[in-house]
Amino acid sequence: MEAYLDNSAATRCYQSVCDIVMKTMLEDYGNPSAMHQKGVEAEKYLRDTQEILGKILKVKPKEIFFTSGGTESNNLALIGTAMANQRTGKHVITTAIEHAAVAAPVHHLEELGFEVTVLPVDTQGVVRMDVLREALREDTILVSVMYVNNEIGSVQPVEEIASLVHEKSPRAVFHVDAIQAFGKYKIHPRKQGIDLLSVSSHKFHGPKGVGFLYVSEKVKIQPQILGGGQQGGMRSGTDNVPGIAGMGVAAREVYDHLDENVEKMYELKQHLMGGLGQMERVVLNGMPCMEGAPHIVSASFLGVRSEVLLHALEERQIYVSAGSACSTHKRSASSTLTAVGMGKEQLETTLRFSFCDTTTMEEIDYCLDNLRELLPMLRRYSRK
Amino acid sequence: MEAYLDNSAATRCYQSVCDIVMKTMLEDYGNPSAMHQKGVEAEKYLRDTQEILGKILKVKPKEIFFTSGGTESNNLALIGTAMANQRTGKHVITTAIEHAAVAAPVHHLEELGFEVTVLPVDTQGVVRMDVLREALREDTILVSVMYVNNEIGSVQPVEEIASLVHEKSPRAVFHVDAIQAFGKYKIHPRKQGIDLLSVSSHKFHGPKGVGFLYVSEKVKIQPQILGGGQQGGMRSGTDNVPGIAGMGVAAREVYDHLDENVEKMYELKQHLMGGLGQMERVVLNGMPCMEGAPHIVSASFLGVRSEVLLHALEERQIYVSAGSACSTHKRSASSTLTAVGMGKEQLETTLRFSFCDTTTMEEIDYCLDNLRELLPMLRRYSRK
Repeated sequence: MEAYLDNSAATRCYQSVCDIVMKTMLEDYGNPSAMHQKGVEAEKYLRDTQEILGKILKVKPKEIFFTSGGTESNNLALIGTAMANQRTGKHVITTAIEHAAVAAPVHHLEELGFEVTVLPVDTQGVVRMDVLREALREDTILVSVMYVNNEIGSVQPVEEIASLVHEKSPRAVFHVDAIQAFGKYKIHPRKQGIDLLSVSSHKFHGPKGVGFLYVSEKVKIQPQILGGGQQGGMRSGTDNVPGIAGMGVAAREVYDHLDENVEKMYELKQHLMGGLGQMERVVLNGMPCMEGAPHIVSASFLGVRSEVLLHALEERQIYVSAGSACSTHKRSASSTLTAVGMGKEQLETTLRFSFCDTTTMEEIDYCLDNLRELLPMLRRYSRK
Repeated sequence: MEAYLDNSAATRCYQSVCDIVMKTMLEDYGNPSAMHQKGVEAEKYLRDTQEILGKILKVKPKEIFFTSGGTESNNLALIGTAMANQRTGKHVITTAIEHAAVAAPVHHLEELGFEVTVLPVDTQGVVRMDVLREALREDTILVSVMYVNNEIGSVQPVEEIASLVHEKSPRAVFHVDAIQAFGKYKIHPRKQGIDLLSVSSHKFHGPKGVGFLYVSEKVKIQPQILGGGQQGGMRSGTDNVPGIAGMGVAAREVYDHLDENVEKMYELKQHLMGGLGQMERVVLNGMPCMEGAPHIVSASFLGVRSEVLLHALEERQIYVSAGSACSTHKRSASSTLTAVGMGKEQLETTLRFSFCDTTTMEEIDYCLDNLRELLPMLRRYSRK
């Protein structure tokens, strides 16, 4: 048996996604910028996906801009906002638990002369509102907070943060990295006070290499990839029709079944956390089960280094992640795990289990059974 | 019958490309950065494509960096080089017939304080070497010249340009936009003196939304999309495994049959140019048939506006382009056509016909027959 519990790294594409990707590769393969019928047909896929996403987010279709994925969305949001608004101010706020795709561009802004405040989080990985309140200034132009943390599944009070940001720093743009949240939460940027929202397709059964950035029509950002002027000049380059069409189908499918998917994932999560909670020297990280994201469980297996356990599980076709898989093979300590106050041993023994709507209870049981068998064995062999 | 003669805008994917795209969407769907077997399997597709491209270009696989397409490749090459080398000098050279994906980032550099020299071309669309010689300076850090022009198919003497650049401006980086050349020419950057080479997958039967930039290991460029550190930090973001795998298969297939493909396309081109040459008031643009690129024919149909003829052909399922389709629906005069010295009437009556290896002689005949029928009719109705 196999248990793929690394869905926060990448998901399997839905068959319906594959079907439309094939159709746009073999039949409707025109360049959407072409003036003839083949171009018009190709362009329709872009409009359709904008419509789907606009409905899900309750925003205007034209506020959806396609990118090559979550990382590009975050880069465009952060660098684009900073560049377009630097005359208003040069103060940027983010948190200590952001993904590298936010942390790295923010660090780049710092090198360019922007002043950056990094908000601490509590032990459950939640931003402290009192610290945010103090950090917000008149010259704050950008606040970037992730919706769901990719390593421990903690969920930020996005709406509350937005209110505070807009109240204390009316000229600031509020960006939310929703890469782990889209497909798991009902997100309505306008109602929630979100100005920019980054999403990646391959986290919810869409193709890799595509994502989008919601940009509120009130917000000005500077394009980062320049050329033929596609997408109203916001993001040049021949539009990735198969990827965009596939992302639209995946988004519709996942939101058509959102409530049942989420309920199912919480059942899996409760079962996994329950089983882990009964094991000796296993620490569950993040928020309490039902408060955290439905699809992410983080646990520390004291006495067994995470990569040892990861590879032992892998031999039994159980696929999990040590910290975040999105940082390529890095062995440096996770900034999220450090930020929630983990000590060295816990840092080095943490694994992430992540589900999707097609994960089964049998996979969870198979994983738990193997952990029960492996842990005592591996602990016996590991050095003190 | 249908004649798709807009292959320089976008090509149909090969079936073999679709097969590997499907496989990586449904079976080998892991995140290539994941530490487990599913990640290793996914990563192998990246290595395989680097190997294929390395062999074709006779460069090291690690000199191939994947992007979301030709536009991103050009942006990364130009802005990345300028940013990394601005302490050496701030002079940049390009030509008057570059695609917007080069012209726009170069214009952006100008706004950032770089000095830009735009080289004129002759009436066939070829850079004048005497002007280049005069333009090259000690503080020139970047020269960008396209291999094959996308609108008229003119081919630049890339090797000769490279020699001159490296002789007169030894610190300059030589970038070649090969988006219309890859798959039609044997390109060997090291031998030809090319430091950076931009390629887009969907121009040679690969998927949209993927491309690559060859970066000579001697050259330093600054990454433009920051995050998890994928691709050695040069281009962050979860790698687009399906797109990259598909591009590799397409590249291998197209280069396995390069000579026969090119021969076939020249036969199509000769036939089309021969037919067009016999029509009244039709001007053939660019270089003589066998000197220009094998897959692009540009012609001006005096007395009939290009969009009128384009749509008349479209009604008969003949798909061509007015100027370049890569600029989205713009109706401003093409800078390439202006640069080769066209007058207003010729500018407004120019169409591009572009082939691929699966274009048939029947399609060309069908197109010629319809042109013979349509032209006198349309000319009769158009205003003087």
